[in-house]
Amino acid sequence: MERQDRQDRGVGALSATPAPIETDALIVGAGPVGLFQAFQLGLLEISCHIVDALPAAGGQCVKLYGDKPIYDIPGTPRTSGHGLAESLLEQIAPFKPQFHFGEQVATLAREPDDRLRLTTSGGKTFLAKTVFIAAGVGAFVPKHIALDGIARFEGTRLFHHPESLDRFAGQTVVVNGGDDIALETALSLAAIAKQVTLLHRRDGFQADEAVVARMRTAVADGHMRFVVGQPAAFDGTRLQVTTPDAQTLELPVDALVACLGISPRLGPIADWGLELERKQVPVDTEKFETRERGVFAVGDINTYPGKRKLIVCGFHEATLAAWAATAIVFPGKAIPLQYTTTSTRLHTLLGVG
Amino acid sequence: MERQDRQDRGVGALSATPAPIETDALIVGAGPVGLFQAFQLGLLEISCHIVDALPAAGGQCVKLYGDKPIYDIPGTPRTSGHGLAESLLEQIAPFKPQFHFGEQVATLAREPDDRLRLTTSGGKTFLAKTVFIAAGVGAFVPKHIALDGIARFEGTRLFHHPESLDRFAGQTVVVNGGDDIALETALSLAAIAKQVTLLHRRDGFQADEAVVARMRTAVADGHMRFVVGQPAAFDGTRLQVTTPDAQTLELPVDALVACLGISPRLGPIADWGLELERKQVPVDTEKFETRERGVFAVGDINTYPGKRKLIVCGFHEATLAAWAATAIVFPGKAIPLQYTTTSTRLHTLLGVG
Repeated sequence: MERQDRQDRGVGALSATPAPIETDALIVGAGPVGLFQAFQLGLLEISCHIVDALPAAGGQCVKLYGDKPIYDIPGTPRTSGHGLAESLLEQIAPFKPQFHFGEQVATLAREPDDRLRLTTSGGKTFLAKTVFIAAGVGAFVPKHIALDGIARFEGTRLFHHPESLDRFAGQTVVVNGGDDIALETALSLAAIAKQVTLLHRRDGFQADEAVVARMRTAVADGHMRFVVGQPAAFDGTRLQVTTPDAQTLELPVDALVACLGISPRLGPIADWGLELERKQVPVDTEKFETRERGVFAVGDINTYPGKRKLIVCGFHEATLAAWAATAIVFPGKAIPLQYTTTSTRLHTLLGVG
Repeated sequence: MERQDRQDRGVGALSATPAPIETDALIVGAGPVGLFQAFQLGLLEISCHIVDALPAAGGQCVKLYGDKPIYDIPGTPRTSGHGLAESLLEQIAPFKPQFHFGEQVATLAREPDDRLRLTTSGGKTFLAKTVFIAAGVGAFVPKHIALDGIARFEGTRLFHHPESLDRFAGQTVVVNGGDDIALETALSLAAIAKQVTLLHRRDGFQADEAVVARMRTAVADGHMRFVVGQPAAFDGTRLQVTTPDAQTLELPVDALVACLGISPRLGPIADWGLELERKQVPVDTEKFETRERGVFAVGDINTYPGKRKLIVCGFHEATLAAWAATAIVFPGKAIPLQYTTTSTRLHTLLGVG
């Protein structure tokens, strides 16, 4: 991590940069482990902000299996991604963590006063005494079509996993992909668009049998087209496609919709100067601290001897990391271990006095 | 730990010793961590037996704060000792662990074939491939009156925290102690005994104000007596008491009831030849294994750098210990990490297929 000298930046009254948000702790990632991190910090009277690239809490757990069952949370025989996130949000509510959704932490640097300066994709700056990286396997981002220069059409002619299909009404649309979401998207568009073409690299799908059947019927009935091939070039109005037999087709399009799956990317964290082992951050097992003092890594993103990528392990890691943070947030102060069952101080913090 | 040679024992057909119970895993302690140990072992297809000195599951958690709230179990904003034990019992039910309540594990020794031989106070013998010590701070036992030779009256003239008071009807009873339980016991006995004397070392109590007031009223009304002093000698019918001004009183008694509190004792575990640091068992943080291969220690009984005596940490320790056990129970077999959300194998094990 680079040491930043504040003068280097030359920011001043003329710049529109908002004042940095000062905080004891910044948590990167609002998955189950990031949320429980806020709980353990709260019990220790360390306030925090939480940043997550997703639009809501729960992380991978909600994004990948929001409604699927989870059986191995201790003391919870059965829950779901959504259920677990809701329980944890209820549990941490007394500590009023401040959430910043839909933003990625872009940079991390050390200040002259040893605090950590973090900036987000949303233009925010944090000055934090401690940082907890609970980013799982990274931010979940849609896979992109690998064509040079295509990014300039993003949001006007090119869309990855669009949230709403309304804007495509009456348009000529190509949907690229072969999973459930791609097929469902093409089928939904067939009802509102002028013309829909499903484009997939092969005549076979990684999708639910019934959805495939509906798609084939729609093609047979002339409600949509299906083309086997791969995008070769895109100029915003014409998509060139290479077919398996090396032919080139040209498809006129108003919009190209890519549904190629969503995969985790470590993203900017890889550039923070932290040591990485196979995309994971090595930590000790006493504090779950990275090699950078005050920067902790908890949950699926860290690695240590014996590591298993399980939520239950992340809960423990967050607990010990919170305790380790007390030495930085409250230097020289001995904090006794108290129990939520018997401590009136903890009851007051939890609002159950 | 001593290596045992089976011939040494000289057991044969003439002995009434029942056959040893053979098991992949034996868990010592049925508190929350011992219970979750059974869950993690179950997911890995390792069957287990659980031994606990108490008459039911839950350990310290139920014994000390069965109905008091617990707020720091991840994903469970509020539960109680009883509630947590019940949830964990439901969670582990699919794995059908076999419980042995009301027994203490007395001895642990290594067999020639490297298995572990354990005997209990109830006369059972286990031959286990792996052992998980989840004994918390030890077995909870009542504090005893410190008088030489007094133990011979236990159960006939001397009683520690008796479960029922019925047997004292019509008797002359001395209750020794100054906490809520001592006062409540004396007050309850006042209704059925011939004569009740509360004996405490000082005229002041560590008890609820209202209970103290009821006791003082009962004394003022002549329903019971109160004596300040300490037991000095007991012959089964007469209790000698030394008062604060060094006088000796003699109280005739049919029964002496001691309510001096319940405190944890490490008990026989201290004699198993395991290394101990301040009554705790050092473990590594990769496997949570003691210096004895196949003997793991999880929860409040273990120690390692960073250790906090919190249930959430014990859950993690039990998880990694279970994984480490696979190398002993299934030698040479690589076990892939699977998730309860997606693994059909785990769904079958959990009975939710």
